[in-house]
Amino acid sequence: MNVVIRNPPRAPALAADALATHGVATTHEAQGRTGLLAAYMRPIFAGARIAGTAVTVSLPPCDNWMIHVAVEQCQAGDVLVVAPTSPSDAGYFGDLLAASLMARGVRGLIIDAGVRDIRDLTAARFPVWSRAIFAQGTVKETLGSVNVPVVCAGALIHPGDVIVADDDGVCVVPRREAARTVERCVAREAKEAAVRERLKRGELGLDVYGMRERLAERGLVYRDAAPEEA
Amino acid sequence: MNVVIRNPPRAPALAADALATHGVATTHEAQGRTGLLAAYMRPIFAGARIAGTAVTVSLPPCDNWMIHVAVEQCQAGDVLVVAPTSPSDAGYFGDLLAASLMARGVRGLIIDAGVRDIRDLTAARFPVWSRAIFAQGTVKETLGSVNVPVVCAGALIHPGDVIVADDDGVCVVPRREAARTVERCVAREAKEAAVRERLKRGELGLDVYGMRERLAERGLVYRDAAPEEA
Amino acid sequence: MNVVIRNPPRAPALAADALATHGVATTHEAQGRTGLLAAYMRPIFAGARIAGTAVTVSLPPCDNWMIHVAVEQCQAGDVLVVAPTSPSDAGYFGDLLAASLMARGVRGLIIDAGVRDIRDLTAARFPVWSRAIFAQGTVKETLGSVNVPVVCAGALIHPGDVIVADDDGVCVVPRREAARTVERCVAREAKEAAVRERLKRGELGLDVYGMRERLAERGLVYRDAAPEEA
Amino acid sequence: MNVVIRNPPRAPALAADALATHGVATTHEAQGRTGLLAAYMRPIFAGARIAGTAVTVSLPPCDNWMIHVAVEQCQAGDVLVVAPTSPSDAGYFGDLLAASLMARGVRGLIIDAGVRDIRDLTAARFPVWSRAIFAQGTVKETLGSVNVPVVCAGALIHPGDVIVADDDGVCVVPRREAARTVERCVAREAKEAAVRERLKRGELGLDVYGMRERLAERGLVYRDAAPEEA
Amino acid sequence: MNVVIRNPPRAPALAADALATHGVATTHEAQGRTGLLAAYMRPIFAGARIAGTAVTVSLPPCDNWMIHVAVEQCQAGDVLVVAPTSPSDAGYFGDLLAASLMARGVRGLIIDAGVRDIRDLTAARFPVWSRAIFAQGTVKETLGSVNVPVVCAGALIHPGDVIVADDDGVCVVPRREAARTVERCVAREAKEAAVRERLKRGELGLDVYGMRERLAERGLVYRDAAPEEA
Amino acid sequence: MNVVIRNPPRAPALAADALATHGVATTHEAQGRTGLLAAYMRPIFAGARIAGTAVTVSLPPCDNWMIHVAVEQCQAGDVLVVAPTSPSDAGYFGDLLAASLMARGVRGLIIDAGVRDIRDLTAARFPVWSRAIFAQGTVKETLGSVNVPVVCAGALIHPGDVIVADDDGVCVVPRREAARTVERCVAREAKEAAVRERLKRGELGLDVYGMRERLAERGLVYRDAAPEEA
Repeated sequence: MNVVIRNPPRAPALAADALATHGVATTHEAQGRTGLLAAYMRPIFAGARIAGTAVTVSLPPCDNWMIHVAVEQCQAGDVLVVAPTSPSDAGYFGDLLAASLMARGVRGLIIDAGVRDIRDLTAARFPVWSRAIFAQGTVKETLGSVNVPVVCAGALIHPGDVIVADDDGVCVVPRREAARTVERCVAREAKEAAVRERLKRGELGLDVYGMRERLAERGLVYRDAAPEEA
Repeated sequence: MNVVIRNPPRAPALAADALATHGVATTHEAQGRTGLLAAYMRPIFAGARIAGTAVTVSLPPCDNWMIHVAVEQCQAGDVLVVAPTSPSDAGYFGDLLAASLMARGVRGLIIDAGVRDIRDLTAARFPVWSRAIFAQGTVKETLGSVNVPVVCAGALIHPGDVIVADDDGVCVVPRREAARTVERCVAREAKEAAVRERLKRGELGLDVYGMRERLAERGLVYRDAAPEEA
Repeated sequence: MNVVIRNPPRAPALAADALATHGVATTHEAQGRTGLLAAYMRPIFAGARIAGTAVTVSLPPCDNWMIHVAVEQCQAGDVLVVAPTSPSDAGYFGDLLAASLMARGVRGLIIDAGVRDIRDLTAARFPVWSRAIFAQGTVKETLGSVNVPVVCAGALIHPGDVIVADDDGVCVVPRREAARTVERCVAREAKEAAVRERLKRGELGLDVYGMRERLAERGLVYRDAAPEEA
Repeated sequence: MNVVIRNPPRAPALAADALATHGVATTHEAQGRTGLLAAYMRPIFAGARIAGTAVTVSLPPCDNWMIHVAVEQCQAGDVLVVAPTSPSDAGYFGDLLAASLMARGVRGLIIDAGVRDIRDLTAARFPVWSRAIFAQGTVKETLGSVNVPVVCAGALIHPGDVIVADDDGVCVVPRREAARTVERCVAREAKEAAVRERLKRGELGLDVYGMRERLAERGLVYRDAAPEEA
Repeated sequence: MNVVIRNPPRAPALAADALATHGVATTHEAQGRTGLLAAYMRPIFAGARIAGTAVTVSLPPCDNWMIHVAVEQCQAGDVLVVAPTSPSDAGYFGDLLAASLMARGVRGLIIDAGVRDIRDLTAARFPVWSRAIFAQGTVKETLGSVNVPVVCAGALIHPGDVIVADDDGVCVVPRREAARTVERCVAREAKEAAVRERLKRGELGLDVYGMRERLAERGLVYRDAAPEEA
Repeated sequence: MNVVIRNPPRAPALAADALATHGVATTHEAQGRTGLLAAYMRPIFAGARIAGTAVTVSLPPCDNWMIHVAVEQCQAGDVLVVAPTSPSDAGYFGDLLAASLMARGVRGLIIDAGVRDIRDLTAARFPVWSRAIFAQGTVKETLGSVNVPVVCAGALIHPGDVIVADDDGVCVVPRREAARTVERCVAREAKEAAVRERLKRGELGLDVYGMRERLAERGLVYRDAAPEEA
């Protein structure tokens, strides 16, 4: 059955905003090394870092009709997540749909398919993470669903989850885990900030992390290069 | 037989210039969703948008001799199109050949293979769309042909056809279709401009395109998120 | 046996500095079209061009422990080369390790795996060439070796070899060949500079390189486009 | 938290057995074109067709420890489903684990990673669908979970779901949908059997499916090849 | 415009039959190393070797309607060639369509997309060369064309051309070149048969082909392994 | 310089013969999880298992001249290893070269490129592991070297090393390590044989390997499926 779920519960906006400041790598570590979408999901331009609540779209291959349906379900602070039911590189999304999403305050698009009008999207600074850039047009013939759980680029995403995206890729945080993940990010970054300062001053990670003993236990051998190697 | 065809008929320069303003996605739609080269053809730097008349080169794998032959057949407003007869990522093209093409007023290069000297080509703003960036050198041993029909990145290209290329990829317009395609691009963009304004003001595509009735006919169901989902 | 070789002989710093000015394509040609790493090794940002002496790391898949060990073996002018013993796209390297390497004067990283914290590395202008951008964390459980010969992205690299990297990719120059390769680069560039000037003035490569006779011997045919082709 | 769920509810064995007779393509169609795993999941030998109830394993990249844990949770009629949390082609599974699974009556393995000992597995006719064949060994250092929901090759799989696999690939049927999907498979095959007989006798699909009128409405034009095309 | 061309001229059946005995590699060499489809086109089972006259289908991505239309245009001795206008791995073809083609005497299918029902097609010995095996269903919504020139897996194919396919892949021979290509295949194989006998008796290709002098001219050096290498 | 090294020292024939009985996975483990060639190296037919001493060929892309040179350097018990200096899928090798190698007692071919005449090679049971099957012809224009160290599919191979290949892929054993690796294979297989028997009788790996305690230490939790999950 094809269904549009209206007003799914969303993660708190404050949690999403906080995760945007931490970025993908930290968020992924903070929730136990889970939640990454596949490495082939790349931004169409460098430098964007966003987080927002997911509005999800499950749609057929080479058919973008349901994206038009999904726009109406979006509100300010959302990120649109589009997952075809079969792999496709077609260009489901371009500058007209972006204009519509921007009018609603949507923060970006995550699409496990192709996107086009890159020049316009870049000029408008509307960030997109996609598996392909391809101008191939799509049809509007077959229904799908909006705000159902989807698998997008290998990750399970529920409507209302937090999506974090930056130059490192895309990470999903389950809605109920968002607040706790923010806390862990803060703790992790605090710890890393101290380490970073020591490393910048030239201290070695071997000492900062106290690795030397365990390396020796495992049997790591140091030796000088033999003279004949010179 | 290896042959160089001199002075093939070319699409009108005005048509090529006009298509450059419309870009790949619009051109592709305007000619009935045909003409796209494969999505793996990517620009070496962002932001270029060109169109020009094709000078085509069919050459053996890992051998760039015929590109030197093709330069002589190029004139101002052309785009060089290079297609090996067998897949290759070798670097057939670099800054010296670019200098030669720029001296003749050639607008860019489309090559279903590798390219090198990216730093110099970028500094000179000579746009290239290629399947790979790779420094591997080629030899000059075996003949090919110039200005014969070629299959480049999955698309059939005749000499004199219009090549349109931008951040979305590359599209070919058959020579005799160029003028008609410009007309259709203009009509399409006029229509889209009006839609774009409405979408920017916040109207929904569902209403602008009048999709609601057909969605209902197909059986799309709307329902509110269940409380227990919260 | 897992071993860390201290103070391997390194190519002369002057040779590395000189090769950085010539870049990957010229270096590759100057040493007889050898030494290129696979084309999938791409820079995380455009425009960097470096050369330095290799400190090599052989490590297990999905485990970055040995990078911490390798940092201590690095000195100013080095380039860190990381090669997993089995293919992996995991993110072995991020901004903390970069801070540590920068504190020691290391010029860049070559890694046949994934890298993360792209935003920070770009802001710090620490150049990395990698096979993937991916935030997936790694563990610190299994030993590897430092400063042993490694195969990285298809190329054999010994500690102390010169690594040259720019927008075209990455090239290795054997330590004992570095000085000779510089000489050949200089000679090649001198020759190319003269050719470049002639090509920029509009002379054809066919004439500059004297190719016409050999093309005719091989049987290349020129003919005008038939009228019916118009 | 790493957890092993014991005795999850399983789809009825009769439903699994029935789906094995229908195969992947029919099952996929019968449940509305959903449930397929990615096309890169290929059998290690041709001709196997199985169905069984899923025991799922989520584990770290390059670490197969949890497969040993999962074996204990398997019973006759199960299919083991293994999904690393990050992409890996390492060889997580070989003939010893197969011996263990066969001793418990497990029907096959679905693994979004690599497998090895192909020769032995083939001789024992233990069917495996995998993304790679690769002998690379794995470690036993890091925990994962057994019988939690996993995303395997792009599909969401819960413990107890039915897995159907044959030469066409792999399809998952949600546990509660298994009985209904069997009914739909039976209905579909009955319909197809009648069509198949007519097609074998030489009737055209155009007539059997009554397509001619709709094709004409859409504007399909028939014409004879022009004489000059001869 | 979407069009079905009826009764295009076909290459002589005798030529197709002859080319089947020579196979892909010989045919490709005999026509000057041209005509190969991309290496990703693989047979669904080993050992088939066919040749026949092409009936071509150009159709939209993820839509197999036009295959049903094309069946009517097929006659005994044909090979069906299917090329989507945009890349797709969907399963456009299965056992019902195969039953229909076999009833008409079609020799096989070449499809630059996915195929399913591999088990049934293998049992029926209906040979298919495809880019993917995938069960994903397609729709029947959008028109395409039959018996127009298509680019299939990188090769230009006209209706009536000869398609040769075996375990090495797929090759196309232009209709008017078929007879001449047969002659060249026969000549080539006669020459190779004599060489093969000499090689089987232990003569070296270096002598049979008289390569030693040219190798020496090019500067090839022979030397014995140094004792210290032992 | 292009060179042919005659009579390089070879690993003992007995060691190679022994490794063939152990196969790739065991050999790879026995030498510390090293030596595997990339997973894309696949056999052209299933079921072959060979080992032999390497005769190595380094040659240019799309040029197979040096294979003819290498044949003369082969003797009974060798395996030919071919590595282009730049990636290529061209068909460097077919039935004529196979006839020549078989006449000399060569056991198989490892080629990081394409191969053709699959039908004939299969009929003759001449085993080949390659990265592609492709009929594209090559030229004979440019020299390379024979019996120099090569990087083949990511692995460093010296002439005289042992090559082991079976359905799992390809593994290289350094010449001087061959005897010791045989010993370790024997020890490993003895240990595995005992384990295999216990597993076949239904004992669990958890008990056979004594894993339960360490799993508990790491914090693995077992719990029964909740009733509401049913």
